[in-house]
Amino acid sequence: MENLKKMVGVKAAEFVKDGMIVGLGTGSTAAFFVEELGRRVAEESLQIVGVTTSNVTSAQARELGIPLKSIDEVDFVDVTVDGADEIDAQLNGIKGGGAALLMEKIVATYSRDYIWIVDASKMSETLGTFKVPVEVVPYGAGQVFRKFEQAGYAPTWRENADGSRLLTDMQHYIIDLHIDKITEPEKLARKLDLTVGVVEHGLFNNMVKKVIVGGADGVDILTK
Amino acid sequence: MENLKKMVGVKAAEFVKDGMIVGLGTGSTAAFFVEELGRRVAEESLQIVGVTTSNVTSAQARELGIPLKSIDEVDFVDVTVDGADEIDAQLNGIKGGGAALLMEKIVATYSRDYIWIVDASKMSETLGTFKVPVEVVPYGAGQVFRKFEQAGYAPTWRENADGSRLLTDMQHYIIDLHIDKITEPEKLARKLDLTVGVVEHGLFNNMVKKVIVGGADGVDILTK
Repeated sequence: MENLKKMVGVKAAEFVKDGMIVGLGTGSTAAFFVEELGRRVAEESLQIVGVTTSNVTSAQARELGIPLKSIDEVDFVDVTVDGADEIDAQLNGIKGGGAALLMEKIVATYSRDYIWIVDASKMSETLGTFKVPVEVVPYGAGQVFRKFEQAGYAPTWRENADGSRLLTDMQHYIIDLHIDKITEPEKLARKLDLTVGVVEHGLFNNMVKKVIVGGADGVDILTK
Repeated sequence: MENLKKMVGVKAAEFVKDGMIVGLGTGSTAAFFVEELGRRVAEESLQIVGVTTSNVTSAQARELGIPLKSIDEVDFVDVTVDGADEIDAQLNGIKGGGAALLMEKIVATYSRDYIWIVDASKMSETLGTFKVPVEVVPYGAGQVFRKFEQAGYAPTWRENADGSRLLTDMQHYIIDLHIDKITEPEKLARKLDLTVGVVEHGLFNNMVKKVIVGGADGVDILTK
């Protein structure tokens, strides 16, 4: 699995050219992409500016010597490469396993090209295997949680290893929704977007046009 | 003006009965309502629990001896009374002049009865005299600001008295939109709700069924 993740991370780095502003994703797969960029910066004098999607990725990029800017310091991002937790046949996806969905979605929104890199286990016909993370304002989060219970979404709180409630980099909570089959991801996204107290959610519909999938037979590039 | 604000604040307190859970609004008009509740708690042994909409209102209520709970500690709020910055003929409104729109909207969402109290100057045929506050996540806020500029909304940052950028109680920024005539408030609300980085906005459409207006001729109660 680590091998597949590294393979797609290195492959995605091929889309990064000198002078680009590059969105750096979060998570174990994206970390291989960032690592490869760091190698090229060090060994091939690649000139790029990174825009990160989490404090964790910022730390990794800094260590690798990749120059960083905030999303507000650039006009736009040339290309963002990130992982995904589940991707359906229409290339809609669920993200947020790493609790960075808000910053990830913000950076993706301002990216001209947006690429996901995954191992083949993340591909599924219909979304729902992976839980849908919803980032919520702490005040009133319990009310939102109850609303999700009533809707049959079997919500759970995202917690730290010590059982305390996880706070995102943006100081919000995450509620994970367990929905078996999400046949209409756009309808669910709309409903979540309109829920008071919801800051953002992990449904990334119609955002990506290219997915690099690593499997036993090598790398496959899906486009739409 | 202070006189009118006090008049509607005291009038609204009549809707509060023993045993109720009461949402306490924020701002100069709501403060008169909270003050009157404090008087009744002290002088008439009124038994209520308050749920506040800002840190400022929490402080006022505590000083007056009104017992408080968080919105997550109650099943629902019986009645919430709050001010508004502008109200149109359909009783849609703009709120957030006091930068508390997010907590105000959260408390209102879980309130069985929701009442606005205003002086007559706040009533207008079409919204737009008052600016529309939009609460945004700090990361990427500059990109959202530019998007609003491009849309012709003439955005400005909400600032503190010393010129620094204001942080709300929930640790977000506020961008004020200057739109002359908001003929379709629901369409604008939808657009803002779907904007990545926007946590909430100050358009309160179809939320209130009763408005208490104080004018030269006394108190007028509008319902829908």
